[in-house]
Amino acid sequence: MQLFETKGTPNARRVHIFMAEKGIDLPRVQVNLRAGENIAEPFKSKNPIGRIPVLELDDGTCLSESVAICRYLEGLHPQPPLFGTTAQSAAVIEMWNRRAEINFLMSVAMAFRNISGFFKDREKISKEWGEISQEVAADVLPVFDAQLGKTEYLAGAELSIADITLAVAYDFANAVKVQIPNDLPNINRWHKMLSERPSFSAA
Amino acid sequence: MQLFETKGTPNARRVHIFMAEKGIDLPRVQVNLRAGENIAEPFKSKNPIGRIPVLELDDGTCLSESVAICRYLEGLHPQPPLFGTTAQSAAVIEMWNRRAEINFLMSVAMAFRNISGFFKDREKISKEWGEISQEVAADVLPVFDAQLGKTEYLAGAELSIADITLAVAYDFANAVKVQIPNDLPNINRWHKMLSERPSFSAA
Repeated sequence: MQLFETKGTPNARRVHIFMAEKGIDLPRVQVNLRAGENIAEPFKSKNPIGRIPVLELDDGTCLSESVAICRYLEGLHPQPPLFGTTAQSAAVIEMWNRRAEINFLMSVAMAFRNISGFFKDREKISKEWGEISQEVAADVLPVFDAQLGKTEYLAGAELSIADITLAVAYDFANAVKVQIPNDLPNINRWHKMLSERPSFSAA
Repeated sequence: MQLFETKGTPNARRVHIFMAEKGIDLPRVQVNLRAGENIAEPFKSKNPIGRIPVLELDDGTCLSESVAICRYLEGLHPQPPLFGTTAQSAAVIEMWNRRAEINFLMSVAMAFRNISGFFKDREKISKEWGEISQEVAADVLPVFDAQLGKTEYLAGAELSIADITLAVAYDFANAVKVQIPNDLPNINRWHKMLSERPSFSAA
């Protein structure tokens, strides 16, 4: 089994933190996004969508999508559970992970791609949409702050994949200059707590 | 348990098809998106993100995000399995469901929102981004066509949630005038096969 990834990207970091929480180590192969290795062979046969990370299994199956990779690793290494253990806890974690991803991380990522033009050699960009995405990302943060005023971690009393997604997206948002609102006391409390976990420095 | 939804929307349809495949029936409450019921109380307390559908459980827990709702229903009604039964099949299904969702459905949805201006009373739109999204949606379809040349259903030999997501998004793409490429023989074969299932007419 080996992991194809690009160090320093938010999605590689999500998988690193997940693996560190589980105590999993895997051989890793770096893919150079800037040079377009992700949209050329041999990588493209591993993921026709051209995104990292990809986990190649021993039977040749290639898994892409960070959450699919993490879910597979959870199946192999169930402890500590990061996807929930009952129908209800699994659904609540899936809900918060998706909110963090769809309503925040994706807006941050669209702000990055459309403002920085990092991939403008290979995709059409809209600066107007990048700026809208920056605002949309900032505007949703109070929803997470309110939840973190009620629960220790994003989806309840225990760390889950939803925390990993939100924290990675939050750090990325800072890096791409999303205007984080000042008044997010619960996110601040939670972010400090997570930053102290060794897994969050995994690279 | 009751389901808050808006008939005719792609995400309501995803849950309807999933329930029909499982033989599940639930009381449903219609939420009027046009009138903004989804961004006002009492709905907003059920989902602060303001999106439908929401499944309210008997203990008052509110689950939003179509896939989280489906995953919960899978826990209650495991047969037929639509999320996989092994670590590997679950991960492959998650991968294809996410590709269908992130790389296709979301582009179709952004084309709809930014071109039609359906929600322009409550969100900023960019016509430029809508048109880019229309192209991005069309451009990814050959990836699904290639996969459906290798497997009966999107994630393998059995129907899964990934088929439901792709098929609903595909029908929505037609409705919002995404230029579907002509040469998609495998998608055509698969779409015809799914359209004949009674669940795909569930409303």
